[in-house]
Amino acid sequence: MNKRLTFHLVGVVVRVVGVLMALPLVVSLILRSGDTIPILIAMLITVAAGSALALIKPRRDTLRPREGFAIVAFSWILVSFFGGLPFFFSGYIPSLIDCFFETVSGFTTTGSTILTDVEALPRGLLFWRSFTHWGGGMGVLVLSLALIPKMGARSIHLMRAESPGPSTDKLVPRVASNAKILYGIYVVLSVIMVVALLLCGLPLYDAVVHMFGAAGTGGFGVYNSSIAWYNSAAVDVVIGVFMALFGVNFSLYYYIITRNWKVALKNSELQTYLGLLLGVSVVIALNIMPQYGGRFFTALRYSFFQCSSIMTTTGYATADFDAWPQLSRCLLVMLMIIGASAGSTGGGIKVIRLQLLLKSLMRDIRRTVHPKSVNTIKLDGHTVDESILSGVQGFFFAYALVLVVATVIVSFDGFSFETNVTAVIATLSNIGPGLGTVGPTGNFAAFSNVSKLVLSMCMLIGRLEIFPILMLLDPDAWKR
Amino acid sequence: MNKRLTFHLVGVVVRVVGVLMALPLVVSLILRSGDTIPILIAMLITVAAGSALALIKPRRDTLRPREGFAIVAFSWILVSFFGGLPFFFSGYIPSLIDCFFETVSGFTTTGSTILTDVEALPRGLLFWRSFTHWGGGMGVLVLSLALIPKMGARSIHLMRAESPGPSTDKLVPRVASNAKILYGIYVVLSVIMVVALLLCGLPLYDAVVHMFGAAGTGGFGVYNSSIAWYNSAAVDVVIGVFMALFGVNFSLYYYIITRNWKVALKNSELQTYLGLLLGVSVVIALNIMPQYGGRFFTALRYSFFQCSSIMTTTGYATADFDAWPQLSRCLLVMLMIIGASAGSTGGGIKVIRLQLLLKSLMRDIRRTVHPKSVNTIKLDGHTVDESILSGVQGFFFAYALVLVVATVIVSFDGFSFETNVTAVIATLSNIGPGLGTVGPTGNFAAFSNVSKLVLSMCMLIGRLEIFPILMLLDPDAWKR
Repeated sequence: MNKRLTFHLVGVVVRVVGVLMALPLVVSLILRSGDTIPILIAMLITVAAGSALALIKPRRDTLRPREGFAIVAFSWILVSFFGGLPFFFSGYIPSLIDCFFETVSGFTTTGSTILTDVEALPRGLLFWRSFTHWGGGMGVLVLSLALIPKMGARSIHLMRAESPGPSTDKLVPRVASNAKILYGIYVVLSVIMVVALLLCGLPLYDAVVHMFGAAGTGGFGVYNSSIAWYNSAAVDVVIGVFMALFGVNFSLYYYIITRNWKVALKNSELQTYLGLLLGVSVVIALNIMPQYGGRFFTALRYSFFQCSSIMTTTGYATADFDAWPQLSRCLLVMLMIIGASAGSTGGGIKVIRLQLLLKSLMRDIRRTVHPKSVNTIKLDGHTVDESILSGVQGFFFAYALVLVVATVIVSFDGFSFETNVTAVIATLSNIGPGLGTVGPTGNFAAFSNVSKLVLSMCMLIGRLEIFPILMLLDPDAWKR
Repeated sequence: MNKRLTFHLVGVVVRVVGVLMALPLVVSLILRSGDTIPILIAMLITVAAGSALALIKPRRDTLRPREGFAIVAFSWILVSFFGGLPFFFSGYIPSLIDCFFETVSGFTTTGSTILTDVEALPRGLLFWRSFTHWGGGMGVLVLSLALIPKMGARSIHLMRAESPGPSTDKLVPRVASNAKILYGIYVVLSVIMVVALLLCGLPLYDAVVHMFGAAGTGGFGVYNSSIAWYNSAAVDVVIGVFMALFGVNFSLYYYIITRNWKVALKNSELQTYLGLLLGVSVVIALNIMPQYGGRFFTALRYSFFQCSSIMTTTGYATADFDAWPQLSRCLLVMLMIIGASAGSTGGGIKVIRLQLLLKSLMRDIRRTVHPKSVNTIKLDGHTVDESILSGVQGFFFAYALVLVVATVIVSFDGFSFETNVTAVIATLSNIGPGLGTVGPTGNFAAFSNVSKLVLSMCMLIGRLEIFPILMLLDPDAWKR
């Protein structure tokens, strides 16, 4: 492995994140929230550490897939460590492991928290906490790519390693332009959302931090009761709809902008994603109607918001779905596992992977009927390459394996089966809340340090889609 | 599809099962248990129905894989229906759906029960109930193949469709001889087990019915407290060890008999199977020691028995593992999913499939490091065919999909998350008890009829390894 180049680029990314701490610093100064000094110290340390690493000058320029994966994995781990320092120096989160957990949860857009009282934190820190969602949503490295133009064509390996989904769409030939187009769409959607929330009557600060959480499909809020605090149907609808929009493959927005409507609307992942989201919302609405005075539309308001929040793996809540009937809770766990679309900021296994797995299963069944038949699998009119299919099947097994192993380790803490399983699913799929102890009104504070580190790894494995992290365990990757 | 041949052969199998009802009939007459008449009526109806179906004479002789799968699927469904009639006519199980559930559970060697008081049943019926485990263990059709010699070479498709594991070993060229060798090993092991139980002081009736349950890795007993009723360390050890022996690939016994020791002992599935079984037993023993007065060997006696019972998917119990610490319960759920060896009477995903999936995952990781490397996967020195690998990956996804869908349907009944998930795992992996309401001291009586049918399908899907049942849903299979 080209270690010098790896460390160099990791340093560049850490430095970018350090510089970005200027944002909460400014917010802290404007709002006089009293957390300026800890943010400043953390910022200086991060920029210094990043710059020190970046001083390592690579001897060769080769950036192969293995370097791509390693850079992504190390960047995310280091950025989560340094990004947690403002919380540590402020004294609000005294344990470094808790700071790491909270920041991993931020950058991976999971939204799981170890805080029992979010409202106790000053507003500068809360701004930074929410901003990690926005920065992590499109990828810490994609962000750096968009900000630092000199990386050039080699960076396709970085983008591939970081971006979610079984394959990476290339909208235009140059990677840097690709990153800029996607970030442009992201910024425009974000701005529209802030305006919509301002129109609902939210203060600017609230509108921006909740946009961060929704755009990154993260879910960190600033109130203990999450979005339910506003108790406003308009806010529920705006945030619910925008979460769903951020769960769509961003490439489709590019097609819409370039007036390629047909390609966008006929996309089978989009159709399945919206069909599932709306279908399950209606079923749950019917199931929970009795709890909402038999009023269907009130029930639908709450069911759509929770479904959109869970399926896009955001994790905002306007209702305690842990108190809903078994069927609804079970359907929500199903949505947790499925997740959003590839190429969006959402997590989970992704709709398109499940479509490919189902098509592959149908083919297997057909093969038991006609053993000698040769069938290719098509999606949106294109034949799917067998190597992608086999990659998706491998991904699915790896996901299930990590789920089982992590659940076994977390079980040492002695919480209920439901809590253990859904805590792992909620972190591995980057959702945030699970059921039981880690339900929408609960948090992850009670877990042991070992479990917190395991769940942090689950968040990273889920966000980086398994292979970059698992690859680090392969000694072969470290050879020259 | 060659429907006439399919129905004809299904009729033959049903008739064989009808004739086998003579066994409980004789037991009932000898023990004067008062259930002779209902067993006789059920036997006459089954033989008549089977003979009527067998009257359909096939016009052509072609038996392709699709007919093989269809014959297996229909045979198992009909045999479970007719096999439940003795319970129905006796009045002890008044619902036909409950009779079907109980008999599916018997033939698939699951051991899940809807009975709240097993001891209330007369001993003829209990003998039949346990016998279904023994008959289903090696396969209802393999049994028929061994009994009816005229089926000839075509029957390879039947055996492939019914026998567990990713590929079928051919020990000797002729299928009928293969079936006879395997059944011979099965019978010899069964007889040795009965002798061992007699030496432990069990009455002949008890020894035989518990041999049926262990040999088929089923788990039906005759006491409400299962094997704990005897409260005997000797009985625990004998049954624990024999369950483990019946979870080994029977082909390995053939190698041992033919003095091919090395092939048998170097078998990597055997090593992994025994390693997991013993390793988890020790971990659980350490975990539950405090509940057993701090005595390691007492704890090991109970942990080994439960692990052997769960991993071989038998389901006998000598302790209420639902009351064990979270870690132990979680490890048991993991063993439930893994299951026994291919080519044994046990269920689950099977050790060899997980070995192949892990090796395939390792290869995927290696490929992210060296994208252009070409690696074949080897097991026991042989290269594994890519089509087998892809079949195993498809199987794994299908297993997970059935697990999620069935759990959603069962959730309608409103039981806990733990109960729903483990009820489906316990039936899909053919184990018997789960956790919570369906734990070792509980039963499946409280589920709705819809859930009982869904769980019955899970048992069939698990025992026939998914594809024969799913294939019936493909309209293409029904074309001429």
